[in-house]
Amino acid sequence: MKLRDLPTPCLVLDRQILLRNLATMAEAVARHGVPLRPHMKTAKSVEVARLALAGQPGGITVSTLAEAEYFASHGLTDILYAVGITPARLDQVARLNAAGAQIIVLTDDPAMAARIGAMENAPRTLIEVDSGEGRGGVGPEDAALIQIATHLGGAFAGVMTHAGHSYAGRSIAEMRAIAEGERAAITRAAGRLREAGHDVPIVSMGSSPTARHAAHLDGITEIRAGVYMFGDLFQAEIGTHGLADIAVTVLTSVIGRRPGRLLVDAGGLALSKDRSTEAAPRDYGFGLVLDAAGRPSHGDAIMRRAYQEHGVVEFDPAHPIDLPVGGLLRIAPNHTCMTVAAHDRYYVVEGGEEVVAMWTRVNGW
Amino acid sequence: MKLRDLPTPCLVLDRQILLRNLATMAEAVARHGVPLRPHMKTAKSVEVARLALAGQPGGITVSTLAEAEYFASHGLTDILYAVGITPARLDQVARLNAAGAQIIVLTDDPAMAARIGAMENAPRTLIEVDSGEGRGGVGPEDAALIQIATHLGGAFAGVMTHAGHSYAGRSIAEMRAIAEGERAAITRAAGRLREAGHDVPIVSMGSSPTARHAAHLDGITEIRAGVYMFGDLFQAEIGTHGLADIAVTVLTSVIGRRPGRLLVDAGGLALSKDRSTEAAPRDYGFGLVLDAAGRPSHGDAIMRRAYQEHGVVEFDPAHPIDLPVGGLLRIAPNHTCMTVAAHDRYYVVEGGEEVVAMWTRVNGW
Repeated sequence: MKLRDLPTPCLVLDRQILLRNLATMAEAVARHGVPLRPHMKTAKSVEVARLALAGQPGGITVSTLAEAEYFASHGLTDILYAVGITPARLDQVARLNAAGAQIIVLTDDPAMAARIGAMENAPRTLIEVDSGEGRGGVGPEDAALIQIATHLGGAFAGVMTHAGHSYAGRSIAEMRAIAEGERAAITRAAGRLREAGHDVPIVSMGSSPTARHAAHLDGITEIRAGVYMFGDLFQAEIGTHGLADIAVTVLTSVIGRRPGRLLVDAGGLALSKDRSTEAAPRDYGFGLVLDAAGRPSHGDAIMRRAYQEHGVVEFDPAHPIDLPVGGLLRIAPNHTCMTVAAHDRYYVVEGGEEVVAMWTRVNGW
Repeated sequence: MKLRDLPTPCLVLDRQILLRNLATMAEAVARHGVPLRPHMKTAKSVEVARLALAGQPGGITVSTLAEAEYFASHGLTDILYAVGITPARLDQVARLNAAGAQIIVLTDDPAMAARIGAMENAPRTLIEVDSGEGRGGVGPEDAALIQIATHLGGAFAGVMTHAGHSYAGRSIAEMRAIAEGERAAITRAAGRLREAGHDVPIVSMGSSPTARHAAHLDGITEIRAGVYMFGDLFQAEIGTHGLADIAVTVLTSVIGRRPGRLLVDAGGLALSKDRSTEAAPRDYGFGLVLDAAGRPSHGDAIMRRAYQEHGVVEFDPAHPIDLPVGGLLRIAPNHTCMTVAAHDRYYVVEGGEEVVAMWTRVNGW
């Protein structure tokens, strides 16, 4: 099967770029002697997980229990569910763990911690620590930190943080500084807990930029990252990787031709309405236009507008994209996690136009 | 089953509001004696389609061939596929039509028209006309209009337009003016084609704002609209309907508590990254926060930030939302078409918290 045989819009995953991205991250974390617990929230595919786990202990991170159930059913049972746990989900985790999974959960809430501490067969639980993102987590100096560990009792297994604010970094130096802040916050939390008499076996941190660029990881027992596998325009703009390292693009067909623009069949659903590059050095609209082989042959052409099923590609009239209706393009996305979520499979290529495999994804909740 | 038994995040569809929205639109178009061909791209559900077709001839509009196949399999065979046709999709349509569907396609491209005209058993084809949106379609005065009809030959069945620019309207008067521009453009195109000797049985126009607010529809044979069924914050802001007419909301659980904000489990995937209300009179961030019963009990609380699986709800500290982890809220979305697309089902309520039905959707392509 060739790309031209695929139904558009669809995801094209270049296995060569994926393997290169995985090797780059594996090398970056190996320098520190810290294992990687890849975050599967982006790829949501067991084939990708197996490649990302090469040379690693085998633990993964997920963002939904649908992912946890899917990966456990494929034999990947060491799972960190990295979203604050609720009472209903605690019951679900208990059922999945009774069936063979080893899901670790997290909380930053004293009442939830007390509930977990009172359970029979409670899942191992990490305390979420805020290292500066201002999303979830208690501060490393917060009195609640010790209180939550005490409530958790035997279920307490360590601490975790996510420096999501690293995405606001715009240089490797900034990301290195944010990585050091992330490391300092989580090791400080671990230190306070140890002083209070708790064992802290897991000290987990990570985001793709900080995992890639941390100067050192002293005191960290594992690092998490996800978007690095596929990359996207936003990550390229902030310097996490290069523009040639975007492994997943959306294959799309031309559905209309106008002076200076083309209408294509990838719109807001196929690409998402994510506009993250609006705040990046270069604004790519809804995506960068590549040729059918994934090469940047069309200069500065971008998808300027995205309707539900229509995308408007604008190009420089001096360098027109001369394709008939039915002609193919590929669009590199702003934010790959959002884009891939609309699709149920990847069509895998090895640099060329031959489709060598089809890998499924798990979506929903 | 009650709302509290549902896995979050999920879609809650209030059947009472849906029926009211359907009645309002049916009444608006009945004034003009023009049948409604509901656009199912928003709801993508046969249960909703059957309700929307009450009192109508039975034709529907779709935005993907996945929808066409799904609705045809449920006996709704009179289908307008309202996205410019490509050669590959023409083959798919021919197969579906041979199996019993009666899919009408559209084009604005002379080469595609010639291809369709040369087919055996070509599908009935409309020429897409641009009435001011600047997306797809030939202008009503364009010479290509007549040329395309000639190429289509016996497949030519009429003209269609979509005044998507009505979404830029900010008052009923503006929408009325845009509706009249849409009507004038498409009837002018039909008139030119008739002067050139073509029969023009179908003269199709529509968008929710123009269908709702058109002053008259002289010369129009059918009207299309879709988002009116569910409504959303953007449509409420531009005056298509009221804030109390939003039929679909996202049920979400609290996963974290902080001063002045809550963390919930509906993020960018559950709600979409659509920020259309940024350009509306009121900017709702990623959505308006309602209580678990769907009432606006939380004042101006909105979802300010959306990560992949985390939403940050901000509220006035003087009116805190006092819910524990696991507590429920509902979020009214900016743009319902984008939000519902991440979900595979609707949990249906009748104003209360009792779930009376579960309706599936068709997603993907």
